[in-house]
Amino acid sequence: MQSLQEKASEWSGVNPNDAFAIDEINLYQKLGLQTFINISTNFYNRVYDDEEEWFRSIFANSKKEDAIQNQYEFFVQRMGGPPLYSQRRGHPALIARHRPFPVTRQAAERWLHHMQKALDSTTDIDSDSKVKMTNFFRHTAFFLVAGDELKNQKQSIACKHATSKPAAV
Amino acid sequence: MQSLQEKASEWSGVNPNDAFAIDEINLYQKLGLQTFINISTNFYNRVYDDEEEWFRSIFANSKKEDAIQNQYEFFVQRMGGPPLYSQRRGHPALIARHRPFPVTRQAAERWLHHMQKALDSTTDIDSDSKVKMTNFFRHTAFFLVAGDELKNQKQSIACKHATSKPAAV
Repeated sequence: MQSLQEKASEWSGVNPNDAFAIDEINLYQKLGLQTFINISTNFYNRVYDDEEEWFRSIFANSKKEDAIQNQYEFFVQRMGGPPLYSQRRGHPALIARHRPFPVTRQAAERWLHHMQKALDSTTDIDSDSKVKMTNFFRHTAFFLVAGDELKNQKQSIACKHATSKPAAV
Repeated sequence: MQSLQEKASEWSGVNPNDAFAIDEINLYQKLGLQTFINISTNFYNRVYDDEEEWFRSIFANSKKEDAIQNQYEFFVQRMGGPPLYSQRRGHPALIARHRPFPVTRQAAERWLHHMQKALDSTTDIDSDSKVKMTNFFRHTAFFLVAGDELKNQKQSIACKHATSKPAAV
């Protein structure tokens, strides 16, 4: 059986070494807190204004300012900065926290489309940092698609509608 | 609705500041790689020999040497060392990766019992580091209990047996 990491690599086309090249330098020290806030603000401004209603609607139950804070705090923590996310919300637990959302391949591509635009619109990001983050984001997006498929796995708790024979119609 | 972090704090009795006091110092630099390998080896030796069959059986489908490596690589990564875990397996995704296991309160307490013994049996851990790790482990164990309960939540994908009306009996 393929692992989450193997699926993420195959589906994203990004191998683990490239995905986790973000750890070769301290991106937080290099770019600073404000850059991460700017990326997430730019990103969610695009997402909440997306012309694609199917994608925009995924975020309809979250406040934009909360989405921005959750995201940049996670980025800061994961990319060498203080553990802002865990202090406030605990372990990132990325797959579990995305459980309420339909993280399809199409949704991953749309997320990445907006993130690429956000990175390109944010000043003070050098090209090496941008490549590292882009690879990390692409691999992570498909890691979450792989995680999303776990939802369809058989649960040990039987569906309450299940019968040993097909129900009479 | 209580968040995962709130449930973890209430059930464990450890508040987030104490749980994430592991981030106040770099435990990896302080203790070194070998200490983490020793903790995980000691811990899993106890787990795989546990006289409580219900707990021992949770690990029956995993090789002990794999369990040891997965654990110490995660500890090293989370406590200030190189990202050994993510390079090999991707994001920790703690809740999703514990999905196959019944992470009950009883199982959390048994895990913590063995971990306390492992910490007490491992030389070269100063008492401050031990307190920090103990709080982190206790909070995390109950974070996973909270995550385990997500498995019982209603899925957005309808059960294939579901009908709009109760099936005729």
